[in-house]
Amino acid sequence: MPFHKITAADISHFSSILDARYVHTDSEQISRCASDQTEDLHYPPEVVLQPGSTEEVSSIMKYCNEQRIPVTPRGAGTGLSGGALPVFGGVALDMKRFNKILHIDKRNFQVTTEPGVITQELQEQLKAEGLFYPPDPASKGSCFIGGNVSENSGGPRAVKYGVVKDYVLNLEIVLPDGQVIWTGANVLKNATGYNLTQLIVGSEGTLAVITKIVLRLIPAVKHDLLLLVPFRSPVEACAAVNAIFLAGYTPSALEFMERDALEWSMRYVQSTGISLPEDIAAHLLIEVDGNHTDELYRDAEAISQIVQQYDIGEILFADSHEQKQMLWTLRRKVGEAVKSNSIYKEEDTVVPRAELPELLQIIKKLGKEYGFRSVCYGHAGDGNLHVNIVKGEMSDDDWKTKLPLGIRQLFKEVTRLGGTLSGEHGIGLVQKEYMDIAFSETQLLLMRQIKQVFDPNGILNPGKILINP
Amino acid sequence: MPFHKITAADISHFSSILDARYVHTDSEQISRCASDQTEDLHYPPEVVLQPGSTEEVSSIMKYCNEQRIPVTPRGAGTGLSGGALPVFGGVALDMKRFNKILHIDKRNFQVTTEPGVITQELQEQLKAEGLFYPPDPASKGSCFIGGNVSENSGGPRAVKYGVVKDYVLNLEIVLPDGQVIWTGANVLKNATGYNLTQLIVGSEGTLAVITKIVLRLIPAVKHDLLLLVPFRSPVEACAAVNAIFLAGYTPSALEFMERDALEWSMRYVQSTGISLPEDIAAHLLIEVDGNHTDELYRDAEAISQIVQQYDIGEILFADSHEQKQMLWTLRRKVGEAVKSNSIYKEEDTVVPRAELPELLQIIKKLGKEYGFRSVCYGHAGDGNLHVNIVKGEMSDDDWKTKLPLGIRQLFKEVTRLGGTLSGEHGIGLVQKEYMDIAFSETQLLLMRQIKQVFDPNGILNPGKILINP
Repeated sequence: MPFHKITAADISHFSSILDARYVHTDSEQISRCASDQTEDLHYPPEVVLQPGSTEEVSSIMKYCNEQRIPVTPRGAGTGLSGGALPVFGGVALDMKRFNKILHIDKRNFQVTTEPGVITQELQEQLKAEGLFYPPDPASKGSCFIGGNVSENSGGPRAVKYGVVKDYVLNLEIVLPDGQVIWTGANVLKNATGYNLTQLIVGSEGTLAVITKIVLRLIPAVKHDLLLLVPFRSPVEACAAVNAIFLAGYTPSALEFMERDALEWSMRYVQSTGISLPEDIAAHLLIEVDGNHTDELYRDAEAISQIVQQYDIGEILFADSHEQKQMLWTLRRKVGEAVKSNSIYKEEDTVVPRAELPELLQIIKKLGKEYGFRSVCYGHAGDGNLHVNIVKGEMSDDDWKTKLPLGIRQLFKEVTRLGGTLSGEHGIGLVQKEYMDIAFSETQLLLMRQIKQVFDPNGILNPGKILINP
Repeated sequence: MPFHKITAADISHFSSILDARYVHTDSEQISRCASDQTEDLHYPPEVVLQPGSTEEVSSIMKYCNEQRIPVTPRGAGTGLSGGALPVFGGVALDMKRFNKILHIDKRNFQVTTEPGVITQELQEQLKAEGLFYPPDPASKGSCFIGGNVSENSGGPRAVKYGVVKDYVLNLEIVLPDGQVIWTGANVLKNATGYNLTQLIVGSEGTLAVITKIVLRLIPAVKHDLLLLVPFRSPVEACAAVNAIFLAGYTPSALEFMERDALEWSMRYVQSTGISLPEDIAAHLLIEVDGNHTDELYRDAEAISQIVQQYDIGEILFADSHEQKQMLWTLRRKVGEAVKSNSIYKEEDTVVPRAELPELLQIIKKLGKEYGFRSVCYGHAGDGNLHVNIVKGEMSDDDWKTKLPLGIRQLFKEVTRLGGTLSGEHGIGLVQKEYMDIAFSETQLLLMRQIKQVFDPNGILNPGKILINP
């Protein structure tokens, strides 16, 4: 793609759109926007722009579209598929100034927010009003809601409450040519034309820049209980997941962790809160929630009975705030813990829930075949298993050439099981080479043509999702 | 559009694709496929084709695309926006032979079905397996699941369980040029490329022909209770809806009926099961469901307390199967009852829930201004109000020229309240002239371009959703 390289004249033009203090070319800002949380990748933009209004985003897009300057929108930079990496340089469109919750509409159980609000802060402000926005990615303490919408994020509660797409009612977006539209309406049901809202959700910043988000909310839930169940066999732990649903229970979280995942996380956060007997190979972390504690204890008891049909250790039953916090911290820190331990790649496999035990066996078998070690954990209730492949002793050569073959094989098996490449991290930069496994040329052509409709000059987040946009 | 008129050679070609007994040009079949449940509209196709396999649909589409023959897919013909009307003649693609439930995957809480299965039959077969597919449009006893997907249908339970789009995981579709693809994967979470599945759901048969549907399911719910609450003021009934949610309750149905709606329905089904004192102006029908009856009675009692803050009559508390059936029949038959009473037009307004009282007042005010009578009822818990405008004493002239101005004004008010044109019936033929109220030219252009991507020759269900596709 013959993109235009940014010149002094462009910088001067940007400084006429934005206050000059929001136009950055210094190495610190450039370097900050060159990376996200995806492996150790580094793609510096030529300039970092920090617009503060929809109008400013519109002016920037209009100019960059005319000048053929690539624009990569950036949230908090917590992405795991490289969606925010400016792989062709150009503009990093840093959305951090879009940090206001615009309107909490308690009467209608809706919130209108800017995209640069930290997800956990949004959740806490809503909770104070008796409202509940459930999706809670592991990075909720630092990620932006706009990034969550762009990636269609999930998190532990998705198993009961659904993912981000299930909460987005309407979006204000700036198209690559600078035009501003809303994608839908602020209503719970909508059968009015094509669903532009759902086309933008999960499009990873490749179709438009999100500037306002309307989310539906539900009444806050008052109570929850947490169980940590140790299993002697990881495959049995996966099988128990399905048994819980078949018995008619829908926990508010149902997380799986291989022994390594929990052990590394405990070391990483220096926790001694739980004991990890040598014969324990995996854990399920199971949460139930509701408004009546008697019902929660009854459900937790019934779930305990179900898992006791398997070969398990002693169930840890957490009903104090501190215990629950401790367990959730251990779960949420697994990703960082693995990252701190070794160079790694993270796959975000997702299969129909009942296929989890087979998926886990396949991963370990492929590991032996291709010489990689993996740490697996994730949202077992959704069939969404994160596979962290650690470099460890693997040679650089094998890491670069042999491992991708193993990952291809893994994704082939995943699709054979009815699954697909990514459950919640997105395709971004690092998974796009595998898209041909999940999709035929006809499907990919439809996606390329949709990209063309929105972004005919291909300036918005180029190099993501599709190999040849 | 210069569509090709069907010739004897075309019929002969169709008879080479299908067994000749599934190629119909007789007046009975033509007439059957000329109408759906939308007003008294009648647009005869030139031929009715009844394919029995994806391959047959593919061959038909390929041929019609090459020959520029318009194709209008048809489910059970229960649509309320004219989506199945062959307004340009050509082929009526009657999907009734796609009537098999292909695979009930109990392990994964999924079902794969053909589109020509009657929704209620699907629900009953699933229920027998302990599985629950919630969306239940009023026409569930006769409509097809494929039509439900095409229109993104709702129904009473949407308020707790969501609409069709919230259950569709994956679709097998035939593109207008005959190519066959799946839109997604059979997984609960998916962040893999653009969401083609959600683009097809609700696209009213204008982008592709649906040939297989994968739905996610939830565990069957064991019990429910039903309350019929009479109000002396319809606006207070609408206000009570919001009070229930603000108190933290999410009923499994929360339906509103104006007095006329219930009265006409009682007369239509010749029911004497409930008394209707003269001072009662509207009703709420409120269902709660769950697996433990003690909790249901507790919730029903709490909801009773909330509605008693308003000026209400005596609450009818239905816990026997017969009583519940009677009340649901009355609710489901309102549409037919109105239709049997007068020529009418049905609008499917939807607004943020708390705006319902204002919407109802606006409708009545516009009625006075433009001289129309309306019977209002619908899914108040979703802010989705059906406005049945009855012709009654209105002159033919006013019906044709003055009423559309009143409807335009109504939709302008609906959008001002944050709502939109259709909650669950779709745009189809009869609402497309109002699309400019809900959408700007930029938004409409995006939709037209998406239509172009899927259907460059414009042969699939032409004349629907968009004025100039």
